[in-house]
Amino acid sequence: MGGGAAGIGAAGAAKQADPDARITVFTEFEDVGYSPCGIPYVHGREIETFQGLILQGKEFYENAGFDIHYETTVASVDAAGHAVVLASGERVPYDRLVVATGFNYADPGVPGSDLEGLHYVKNIRRAMEWDPILDKAKTAVVVEASPLGLEMTTALAHRGLETHLVDAHPWALSEVADPDIMKPVQDSWAEMGVQMHFNAKLEAFLGDKEVRGVRTSEGEIPADVVVVCTHKQPNNHLAREAGLEIGSTGGIVVDERMATSGGGVFAAGDCVEVPQGFTMLPLQGLSGSHAYAQGKTAGTNAANGQRTYDPVFVPWGMVAGKWMIGGVSFGETTAGALGMPYHLGMAQGISRARYYPGMQKILVKLLAEPKTLRIIGAQLVGGEGIKERADFLAVCSKKGITMRDLAVMENVYSPPIGALNEPISLAAQNGLARLAQAGKST
Amino acid sequence: MGGGAAGIGAAGAAKQADPDARITVFTEFEDVGYSPCGIPYVHGREIETFQGLILQGKEFYENAGFDIHYETTVASVDAAGHAVVLASGERVPYDRLVVATGFNYADPGVPGSDLEGLHYVKNIRRAMEWDPILDKAKTAVVVEASPLGLEMTTALAHRGLETHLVDAHPWALSEVADPDIMKPVQDSWAEMGVQMHFNAKLEAFLGDKEVRGVRTSEGEIPADVVVVCTHKQPNNHLAREAGLEIGSTGGIVVDERMATSGGGVFAAGDCVEVPQGFTMLPLQGLSGSHAYAQGKTAGTNAANGQRTYDPVFVPWGMVAGKWMIGGVSFGETTAGALGMPYHLGMAQGISRARYYPGMQKILVKLLAEPKTLRIIGAQLVGGEGIKERADFLAVCSKKGITMRDLAVMENVYSPPIGALNEPISLAAQNGLARLAQAGKST
Repeated sequence: MGGGAAGIGAAGAAKQADPDARITVFTEFEDVGYSPCGIPYVHGREIETFQGLILQGKEFYENAGFDIHYETTVASVDAAGHAVVLASGERVPYDRLVVATGFNYADPGVPGSDLEGLHYVKNIRRAMEWDPILDKAKTAVVVEASPLGLEMTTALAHRGLETHLVDAHPWALSEVADPDIMKPVQDSWAEMGVQMHFNAKLEAFLGDKEVRGVRTSEGEIPADVVVVCTHKQPNNHLAREAGLEIGSTGGIVVDERMATSGGGVFAAGDCVEVPQGFTMLPLQGLSGSHAYAQGKTAGTNAANGQRTYDPVFVPWGMVAGKWMIGGVSFGETTAGALGMPYHLGMAQGISRARYYPGMQKILVKLLAEPKTLRIIGAQLVGGEGIKERADFLAVCSKKGITMRDLAVMENVYSPPIGALNEPISLAAQNGLARLAQAGKST
Repeated sequence: MGGGAAGIGAAGAAKQADPDARITVFTEFEDVGYSPCGIPYVHGREIETFQGLILQGKEFYENAGFDIHYETTVASVDAAGHAVVLASGERVPYDRLVVATGFNYADPGVPGSDLEGLHYVKNIRRAMEWDPILDKAKTAVVVEASPLGLEMTTALAHRGLETHLVDAHPWALSEVADPDIMKPVQDSWAEMGVQMHFNAKLEAFLGDKEVRGVRTSEGEIPADVVVVCTHKQPNNHLAREAGLEIGSTGGIVVDERMATSGGGVFAAGDCVEVPQGFTMLPLQGLSGSHAYAQGKTAGTNAANGQRTYDPVFVPWGMVAGKWMIGGVSFGETTAGALGMPYHLGMAQGISRARYYPGMQKILVKLLAEPKTLRIIGAQLVGGEGIKERADFLAVCSKKGITMRDLAVMENVYSPPIGALNEPISLAAQNGLARLAQAGKST
């Protein structure tokens, strides 16, 4: 159930584990096999056309042996009877079921949610219909500085709209990123003409029939278009009604095989929760690469193969404004909120020799467990190489690599591609120096 | 002794370890504090002027409390008497000595080595004098496809010269890189008009007074300029005469504190040899970042501080032709030459979502120890993110991370900065799949 990264990943992995398996996929939507993550960049015109996002045509999946039912709603799951019941009333039996029902955007919970023209970024066909409006629109409001909100703010400003970002918190992406990481992003938005409304609580969508702006605790903002980028919530009503165990985040509870509490039922992607690697606290709503890997695990096990999914350390990264930001697990803000003690190492480094064209600044913050100094989190902002460093630091976290290890790491030095000193190593060295200094002063 | 990355690194670290230390630096050259690694890119006009390479003026070092003696040759070291003797005859006593005398290019060992105009890339002043010749020159020969040879070939072709690369081996950088890694580089050189002469042994530099070309085993190549990029050899004649122990590579033998066999004498940089992390075989002639880190270790210990230098795994990387190449420790060619067994995982991945502008291919080869599957080497070629991945894989090698770990690594997926599947992880997954396949077929 589900034709996104998790569902298609599961179908592919099941076929690989058991080439004779009969695999049926149900999706409410008109398509599978495109990249929803690319939609903001078409709106922003970094990518020319929506066609570019379509990775595989429908024939590809037919030829691969998948029976995909488009625009088909599953009405309920009969877990005891090992069958799903479609909205048409048809009952479809299964040996194994993979629930990959994804997410819904959180209901903004304010008046006007039913106005026409309120845009949610999810389905490529709706995006294609909406996009031409942006040619005439002059002003836009983006609701919530979530990851998607950051992408859409950047995209709409790039498209040339006067873009307003509304968020109830004091800085963008405040539930994930530290304020010093977001400051260059926000400065660059200001350069791009973005108007930021932080500490501003959304009170209503305004308009008669079509949305014409928003009202916030800080005043009204008229706008030609309004994009709702609220948080992703697990779409788990079918799982809940079927009696599958649901966790504290609202995600379906799964074990390391992505098996749910229901016999023969697996789940993967934005509808599940998985444990964070240090704290074992459940997390939900990770990236497309997480959904895909979880889907492969669920599909393999559903087809009697063997694959496990480890607790996550969640490298993340994105472009926001004129910068790339990223990180791993905890930043200072999130560690502070959880009451986790940490020792900080921080450095401003550069991506190439400082005289080489295209050299970019890279700010690295490393959070280490106070006694062991193992890396428990990181945050980065810079002009290049953020994704690769986040991936690296996630592996470091998982494998118990310490600030001491990173302080003496070797690094490539070649003027066009790397500076004499690697920023990660500088951050670790500064962290150790602070520790030595603290040792002296006590 | 020495004003390069190792010598200046040592001076700075010694001052930090003991702010009251009196630090004297002797250098044969007119300058310190510039980046010799940047010289090829000025010749290639990727960097506009040589001024850009000068990081610090002479006042900076005076203000920092270093007594730097420029254009001063040390004639000998009296290790027993704890003094150096200058070419002027002056005797300069020391408490501790750091030998950072760097490298010399290997003597090509053919007739004509004394011809005028033969260029060696080392001293920025000679480079500034030579550079204007390139405005009029039409053809160039680069001798040896060493790392510098690759940089100079790329630079001279970029500058618009018809560039000939002469190397006795069957492909470029053959002592480090695998042929499949170098193929795209060589293809891109061909596009840039570079004429490659592999399996061609240099027999003579040609010319009456000034060099006018080379003769190789494959024929003569007339040229307006000839650049000699032979291998770096440790410049250790002073150390040797002083009785310091010299290793099998010709580098000075040092312990983990960068202490030599001579009491109170440390050494660092291209004049020393250090052990490779798996094999403990000595290596010599690493990068500027290695020299700098070794220098800091030597300087710290020379000033009674404490710092150790670990065996090396040698992440490397550079731009060659239109590609970036890089790696860690062993490739297939070098592992084969050493008779080291390995299990290979290989994948062609991409650097961003495949529809995102600027997406580049990345080929990753991972070499794992057959039983443990720990990573013992890597080679990469691609359009971006090579340095960061090489740094990452060097830490993986050092810390015993395995192909299994990398097959399930999490990765950032965000269309402008990272693809759904990380190329390193794909390579590891393919390596495991090959292993499973081999298991089935036996």
